[in-house]
Amino acid sequence: MSLEIEQLNMAEQFEQLIATEDKLAIREFLNDQNISDVAELINAYPDYEAQIIANMAINRASSVFKILDISQQKDIIKELPTAKTAELLNDLPADDRTDFLEELPKAVIRDLIKLLEPDERKITLSLLGYPEDSVGRLMTPDYVYVYAHNTVADVFATIRKYAKSSETIDVIYIINEKGELVDDIRIRDVILATPDKLISEIVDGRVVSLKANDDQEHASQVFKMNNRVALPVVDDNDILLGIVTIDDMLWVANEEFSEDMQKIGGTEALNEPYLDIPLLKLFRKRIGWLVVLFLGEMLTATAMGYFEDEIAKAVVLALFVPLIISSGGNSGSQASTLIIQAMAVGEITLADWWRVLRRELTSGLLLGSVLGFIGFIRVSVWHSFLPNLYGKHWLEIASTVGFSLVGVVLWGTLSGSMLPIALKKLGADPAVSSAPFVATLVDVTGLVIYFSVALLFLKGILL
Amino acid sequence: MSLEIEQLNMAEQFEQLIATEDKLAIREFLNDQNISDVAELINAYPDYEAQIIANMAINRASSVFKILDISQQKDIIKELPTAKTAELLNDLPADDRTDFLEELPKAVIRDLIKLLEPDERKITLSLLGYPEDSVGRLMTPDYVYVYAHNTVADVFATIRKYAKSSETIDVIYIINEKGELVDDIRIRDVILATPDKLISEIVDGRVVSLKANDDQEHASQVFKMNNRVALPVVDDNDILLGIVTIDDMLWVANEEFSEDMQKIGGTEALNEPYLDIPLLKLFRKRIGWLVVLFLGEMLTATAMGYFEDEIAKAVVLALFVPLIISSGGNSGSQASTLIIQAMAVGEITLADWWRVLRRELTSGLLLGSVLGFIGFIRVSVWHSFLPNLYGKHWLEIASTVGFSLVGVVLWGTLSGSMLPIALKKLGADPAVSSAPFVATLVDVTGLVIYFSVALLFLKGILL
Repeated sequence: MSLEIEQLNMAEQFEQLIATEDKLAIREFLNDQNISDVAELINAYPDYEAQIIANMAINRASSVFKILDISQQKDIIKELPTAKTAELLNDLPADDRTDFLEELPKAVIRDLIKLLEPDERKITLSLLGYPEDSVGRLMTPDYVYVYAHNTVADVFATIRKYAKSSETIDVIYIINEKGELVDDIRIRDVILATPDKLISEIVDGRVVSLKANDDQEHASQVFKMNNRVALPVVDDNDILLGIVTIDDMLWVANEEFSEDMQKIGGTEALNEPYLDIPLLKLFRKRIGWLVVLFLGEMLTATAMGYFEDEIAKAVVLALFVPLIISSGGNSGSQASTLIIQAMAVGEITLADWWRVLRRELTSGLLLGSVLGFIGFIRVSVWHSFLPNLYGKHWLEIASTVGFSLVGVVLWGTLSGSMLPIALKKLGADPAVSSAPFVATLVDVTGLVIYFSVALLFLKGILL
Repeated sequence: MSLEIEQLNMAEQFEQLIATEDKLAIREFLNDQNISDVAELINAYPDYEAQIIANMAINRASSVFKILDISQQKDIIKELPTAKTAELLNDLPADDRTDFLEELPKAVIRDLIKLLEPDERKITLSLLGYPEDSVGRLMTPDYVYVYAHNTVADVFATIRKYAKSSETIDVIYIINEKGELVDDIRIRDVILATPDKLISEIVDGRVVSLKANDDQEHASQVFKMNNRVALPVVDDNDILLGIVTIDDMLWVANEEFSEDMQKIGGTEALNEPYLDIPLLKLFRKRIGWLVVLFLGEMLTATAMGYFEDEIAKAVVLALFVPLIISSGGNSGSQASTLIIQAMAVGEITLADWWRVLRRELTSGLLLGSVLGFIGFIRVSVWHSFLPNLYGKHWLEIASTVGFSLVGVVLWGTLSGSMLPIALKKLGADPAVSSAPFVATLVDVTGLVIYFSVALLFLKGILL
C-alpha cells in the first residue's frame, strides 16, 4: 500500500520534472531513487525509457539497465545515441553484458562489440564462447585476488585499489603464481585478523568451485548447499577464470521455473515474456506440440473404430468414454508433474526408479479404487432412479465402469511416473513428458482397457 | 566426473574411519570436508547420520544440519543425546531454527524450545509468531548495526566484536536511538573510507527494506531487482527487526517452484520430498483433486446421454469424441500454464487481462484452424482409401470434425487463459486452475460444441 503511494508521488514528481526539461534536476531526481524504482518508472513511462537511462549517472544507469526486460533493453539501445550506448555497454558488468548480447541477432552483436574498449571486448568475446545455460555465461572477471604469501594489510590495499571495479568484495580469492585457484576467504575473516597476519594462516583449505562448462542449474544447487555469496569458476586445469555471484542464481531459478512450467504445459520454452513475444512466434512455439499430440490422439479414433460394432450394439458404452479416459489422463498428469518436480529439485534420481514404481503401484491402486467405487455407485444410483437408462444389465455396466477405472487410473499413474524417469535416462529433458503428452498416451491405451473390460463383463449379454 | 571420484574416496575413507571408532580422527576428517560433502555423506550413510553430526565442531554441525531434508533433521534430533541437541539448536541461526521447528508437532516444539538459552528462546518464540511463508519466518536477528554519528573506526570495532555471531557483515545497518532503520551500507564502502570518516557521510539515503509480514515471494522479487546480498526487515513503525539474506531466497524459489508445479499437476502442495512423504499422506494429497475432477467429468456422461439418440443414429460420431475433447483439453492446459507461469514471475498482472484475451483469441483461432484442417484432411484421406468407412456423407462428417476442432480449441485456449486471471482476481491461487482442471472443464463444453456442430451439418442427413 505504502509502496503504491510512494510510486504515485514518484511518478507525479517525474511528470512534473519531465515537463520542465531541466536535465540537471531530472538527473538529480533519478540518482536519488532506488534502482528498482527507476525500473518501475521505465515500465510506467516507456516513451521516456531511453531518456531516463541517458540522464542517470552511468554506473546507476547500468544497474537499472541490467534488471530490465530484454525487450526494453533492445528498445533503449535502439534509441540511445552511439556514444551513450558505448558508455553503457562498457560500464555493464561483464556477465550482464553477455546476458544481453546473447539475445541479439549476430550482426547487432558484432556492431555493439565494436563499441567496447579492447579489454572489455576480449572478455565479452570469451564469455560469449561458453555454451548457453553454462556457468561461463554468468561469469564476471571482476573480482579481488591475492596470493597466499600476502598479508592482511596487503589485502586491504588490494581491495582499496580494485574494489570499485569488482562485482563483490565479500569474498577474496587466493591464487598461486600459475593462476590456479588455491582457496577463498570471506571478508569477515580478513577484518577479524591482525594486519600482519599471512593469508596462508587464515585459509581453511575448504574450497568449493564451479567449472565454466557446468550447467547453471548445477551452480544453483552448489550455492544452496554451501552458504556462499559468490563462487569461483575454474577451467579444467584449475585456473581461476572468474566468479559467479548468488544474485544471478535468482534469475537462473526464475528462468528454469518458466521453462519447466512451459514444457509441462506442452509449449516450447518461450525465452521471452508472454506479452512481449511476437504473436506468430508464440503460435509457432505452441503449434508444434499440439500437432504432435493431435496426431497421437488420432489413434483414439482408430481404436474407437476398432470397437465400432460394440458401440453400435451398446451405445451406452460410448457415454462413459470421456469419463474413463480423462480419469486416466488426470492421474497421469498428476503423477508426471510430481516426478518431474521431484527430479528438478534433486529429490529423486534415476537410481530411485524402483522405489517410485512401488509407490506409484500402491498409489495407483488406491486412487483407482476410489474413483472406480464412485463410478460404480454413480451407475447404480442413476439406475435406481431411472431404471430404463441402463436396462436390466445395469450391474454389468456398473462393473465395467468401475473396474475399467481401476485399470485406467493405475495405468495412468504408472506411465505418468515412469515416463519422466525413462526420458531422463535417455538423456532427454523429463519436462517434455508434459501433462498433455501423458494424457494423450493414456487416452489411447485407456480406450483399449475400457473396451477389453467391457468385453469381459458384457460378452454374450450386450455385445 | 571428478566430483564422483572424490566422493567415492571420501566415502571409502569414511568407512575405514568409522570402523576404527577413532573419534578424534573422525572429527578431524569431518571438519576437513565441505559442508555439502558432509551432507552427501549423510545421504549415503543414513545409519550414521546422528553420529556424523555429533562428531563435528558445533558451528559446522549446524551448517550441515540446516541444509538437510526435514526428515533427516527429525531423525537426527531423535537420536542425538539431549545435551548435544541443546548445543545444536542454540548454535543454529535463528531463521534456520524457525524453519526446522515449524515442521514439528506442537508438543515437540515446546520440548525443544525449553532447551534453548533465554535469549534464543525469546527470539525463536517471536519468529514463530509470524505467519507461514512470511518474511518474518526467514529473519535472523544476528546482524551488525551502528549509528549515524559513529565513525568508520567504530564500525570496525563493532564488527570485530559481533562478527562471530552475525549472519553476514557484507551489509552494516544504521539505526537511530529509537531503533528505527536509517540506512544500510555495504562493507565495501566502509573499507574504502578513512577511519575517522562519519557514517553519516558515507550513507546514500537509498534504503530498501522488507516488512516482516511481507510474502516471501515478494522478498524474492525485491532481491532480484535490487542487487543486494541482505535486506533489512522492519515493522510498521520502521523499527529494525532483523535481516534476510539472499541465500534463503534460493530455498524460497525452490519451494514456490515445487508448490506451483504440484498444483498445476492437480495435487495439493506436498511440502515434503516425494520419497519421504508417507504413502497414505501422498494418497490424501492426490485423491482430493482427482475426485473433484472425476465428479466434474461425470457431466460428460450426462452430456453424452443427452446426445444418445444422435450417437445411436450415427455411431461414427462417437469415434471422434476423444480426439475432439482432448484437443480442447490440450490447448487449454497449454494456455493456462503459460498464463500461470507469466503471472508467477510477474510478467502479467490483472490489468493485462484484455491484452491476454486478444492474444489468445488470435492464437486460439490460428491453433484451432491448423488442427481443424488436419482433422478434415484425416477424414477425407481415410475416406479416399476406405470409401465405406464414413459412407457418402463423408464430407459432412469431415466438416463436422474440422469446424468442431476450431471451436473447441478456441474455447480451450480462451478458458485456459482467462481462468487463472479470474482466480487471481478472486484472491485464489491461479495455480489451482491446473492443467487437469482446465482439461475437465473443456471436456464437458467441448462435447456440447461438437454435437451442436454435428447437428448443424448432419441434421436431416444422418441425424
